[in-house]
Amino acid sequence: MPEKPFPVAVIATEAPARARKSVYPAPFAQLMEGREKRPLGDLFGLANFGVNLTRLAPRGISALRHAHSRQDEFIYILQGHPTLCTDEGRMRLSPGMCAGFKAGTGNGHNLVNDTAEDGVYPQGGDRTPGDEGTYPDDDIKGSFADGQWHFVHKDGTPY
Amino acid sequence: MPEKPFPVAVIATEAPARARKSVYPAPFAQLMEGREKRPLGDLFGLANFGVNLTRLAPRGISALRHAHSRQDEFIYILQGHPTLCTDEGRMRLSPGMCAGFKAGTGNGHNLVNDTAEDGVYPQGGDRTPGDEGTYPDDDIKGSFADGQWHFVHKDGTPY
Repeated sequence: MPEKPFPVAVIATEAPARARKSVYPAPFAQLMEGREKRPLGDLFGLANFGVNLTRLAPRGISALRHAHSRQDEFIYILQGHPTLCTDEGRMRLSPGMCAGFKAGTGNGHNLVNDTAEDGVYPQGGDRTPGDEGTYPDDDIKGSFADGQWHFVHKDGTPY
Repeated sequence: MPEKPFPVAVIATEAPARARKSVYPAPFAQLMEGREKRPLGDLFGLANFGVNLTRLAPRGISALRHAHSRQDEFIYILQGHPTLCTDEGRMRLSPGMCAGFKAGTGNGHNLVNDTAEDGVYPQGGDRTPGDEGTYPDDDIKGSFADGQWHFVHKDGTPY
């Protein structure tokens, strides 16, 4: 069967949103209800990194505050003023601001939208194998294997 | 000597522009005069992929039309209407449009600004080793080794 050809270009806001809101186990999955991700890189067959267009509704959060062991991440704010939370504290962002999250630092990050308008930003991250996620504020840890995230409590017990 | 700490976030347009306009050999380097690149990912110490904020002046081009053997690329248009040139032809882009360029397809791409206003877009690409660049329209080929691009004529003779 021939592969479906990739598009030349797309309007990012018209890309389909990911059907499953979160891969976190309960009770964390429901915290992601205010987050919508539209995979963009996958539309073009990109394999080495992913790019999503993410929209955070008021009170939405991008993720649990987390750090990656091997994968770098990057965000570029297009709309709104979400707050970036890291070990350095809280910093409200504005359109035209960007931030990168270097793998292996252990410095957890997430975005929290404590404004009344949506926050919109493309986010990118590579897919280096063997990645692990650490969560300084929550009793969870993650490992990426066989194409998906696996989560356990910090003591290793399953969810 | 302690490492200089990375910033939490930056205003992308205030990031320093790359001093050297192009790594192409003559006569191609001068074709890049209308292109300005501001490295963004490097500011945060990202290693697995690079992100630049690129501005194309009227008549500027993003690169020679090229394809990567191993590295994926992605662009997201913020301002202006640069034209994307691929094997499929020419497509004028608009703010909010994005495109990805999958490694290994051999389908060359570049952006040509044939409008009277600047085109501005973040572009990202991973740093998978062993990458080679092919250039369907020009007598040049490139290989990435030891942290830099090496260019020769298509018959292997040096520039």
